[in-house]
Amino acid sequence: MRVAVMSAPGEVRVEDRPQPTILKPTDAIIRLSATCICGSDLWPYRGIETLTGPRPMGHEYAGIVEEVGSAVSTVKPGQFVVGSFFASDNTCEICRSGYQPSCPHREAFGPTGAAQAERMRVPLADGTLVATPEVPGEDLVPHFLATSDVLGTGWFAAVAAEVGPGKTVAVVGDGAVGLLGVMAAQQLGAERIIAMSRNEPRQQLALEFGATDIVTERGAEGVAAIKELTDGLGAHSVIEAVGTQESMMQAIHSTRAGGHVGYVGVTHEVALPGMELFFSHVHLHGGPAPVRRFLPDLMDRVGAGKIQPGKVFDLELPLDDAADGYKAMDERRAIKVLLRP
Amino acid sequence: MRVAVMSAPGEVRVEDRPQPTILKPTDAIIRLSATCICGSDLWPYRGIETLTGPRPMGHEYAGIVEEVGSAVSTVKPGQFVVGSFFASDNTCEICRSGYQPSCPHREAFGPTGAAQAERMRVPLADGTLVATPEVPGEDLVPHFLATSDVLGTGWFAAVAAEVGPGKTVAVVGDGAVGLLGVMAAQQLGAERIIAMSRNEPRQQLALEFGATDIVTERGAEGVAAIKELTDGLGAHSVIEAVGTQESMMQAIHSTRAGGHVGYVGVTHEVALPGMELFFSHVHLHGGPAPVRRFLPDLMDRVGAGKIQPGKVFDLELPLDDAADGYKAMDERRAIKVLLRP
Repeated sequence: MRVAVMSAPGEVRVEDRPQPTILKPTDAIIRLSATCICGSDLWPYRGIETLTGPRPMGHEYAGIVEEVGSAVSTVKPGQFVVGSFFASDNTCEICRSGYQPSCPHREAFGPTGAAQAERMRVPLADGTLVATPEVPGEDLVPHFLATSDVLGTGWFAAVAAEVGPGKTVAVVGDGAVGLLGVMAAQQLGAERIIAMSRNEPRQQLALEFGATDIVTERGAEGVAAIKELTDGLGAHSVIEAVGTQESMMQAIHSTRAGGHVGYVGVTHEVALPGMELFFSHVHLHGGPAPVRRFLPDLMDRVGAGKIQPGKVFDLELPLDDAADGYKAMDERRAIKVLLRP
Repeated sequence: MRVAVMSAPGEVRVEDRPQPTILKPTDAIIRLSATCICGSDLWPYRGIETLTGPRPMGHEYAGIVEEVGSAVSTVKPGQFVVGSFFASDNTCEICRSGYQPSCPHREAFGPTGAAQAERMRVPLADGTLVATPEVPGEDLVPHFLATSDVLGTGWFAAVAAEVGPGKTVAVVGDGAVGLLGVMAAQQLGAERIIAMSRNEPRQQLALEFGATDIVTERGAEGVAAIKELTDGLGAHSVIEAVGTQESMMQAIHSTRAGGHVGYVGVTHEVALPGMELFFSHVHLHGGPAPVRRFLPDLMDRVGAGKIQPGKVFDLELPLDDAADGYKAMDERRAIKVLLRP
């Protein structure tokens, strides 16, 4: 079968590899209906994260169950499923508290668990996968796919930032996660949603998703703009969806005393200065999104047609053209690329 | 009147200075019943924080109102009051949300607002001071004094760490703040309270305040000990009351995924590594304690004899002997020193 493999920074090739097989009784094999490229896939592509060898890529997936191990009881062949990019048992104390990526029994997807492929192995299938009541129509597939990571991550950022009614929310980052952070804030009842973007198509999507204000400034000027919109106090809730030193500090400084920063950008080479954090009086929470916590709710919203998070996919390519997809995202010509196996 | 002044690291002298006077209609003048030396006073004493000139010291106070400005309406001469070390209006949006130290209208205490003195000026008296219903007996004064900062700070750390029923709490730091963090955790209903200390008298006080376990290890070994006591997961809530890089990382690593770190140690030269924080999945909150938020409740508990936070004062000296008090705390011969003007 075909799999997208990154062999070096900037080099993605779609190769033939053996079909995945059930390795443990808790595994499932799924045939991908759609997959996509994540902003975090760009870290190794850009050489910021080191590759230790050729890496089969992809961790966002939606598809049809083809086979399950003998211990799997909640999903069965023929069902349409979405899963999170961490395989967790979803029964332990940490999972039940909603932090599935930190499940002490979590399992790595391994070399046959890459999602930019025709098929993939999903470990701990009972804990990891969520099935829809029926196989959805083709038009809904991109929206379901988005729940697998990018919407779940934006949603977690909004929840971590304690977004809710009456709150003013600022969103740092206009990538797909930031844009779906705007959608999450809207769905969670925020009163005002300030999207920070200087890119016109992304601004438009932010407005479509529920943003009430656009701020084009960045850094200290961006902070000043947020303060000006909030009586000098800062936003109640700030979503950080970039993961650089500048974006983290922009998020912290844009938050009022007692407010909340939810951060989901993978924080490469970030070091938070203690004194600034101390006197900022903000709450800080984030990390790898526990998508599994939110999946049933998000899939219900998609199934009911309440949200269309798949609108972040502004380029769709056959899996075989994955390299073009990486290039388009790297050059910011595409917000997010959907791949059809 | 007599005031303790720090002129250089390690040098504290009690000098004669003019009496404070009302400078603004919102001021009050109080005669100190008792004051004390704070762990944070040791930062300039040890040269870690730079002195820009001779500094009148002290910010913890309880005493009798002698005079109020024309705009003060909630306290009057003759009343016994406690106040926080930030002067805030307590009416603005930030104060009402419970973050008085970040009040946009806060005022500096200024040179005549130092508490290690016979008298002091308190700005924004209506917002800053809380009076008791009656002047308390002499035996209660140390306990009321403790609410002014050290108990309020330990309490805030516990609240920031979301301490509550059913929770396991770890306390990093066995100074007065850490010990009163133990008391706060007990009062807030924690199920298990692990005090981290290798100092026998402090361990005893921690146990008296409600600690259920003592861990003597520090750093990575301390983290391992906490994990061993918590099924390998870490504590739900961790109070950080030191403020060094090592203590902050010890606190973060001792917290389970999804758990909460409440930090109140003043964070000198701390830089939190983004990736470690990201994958820790902890909530982080802290900063200068909004003591004013908790003062009415804490003073009620003291007045009713429910708590005796003044037990952290294990050395009492006349104000004129302040230098001896600093020395005793610096050498860790005393947990906290009460000064009698």
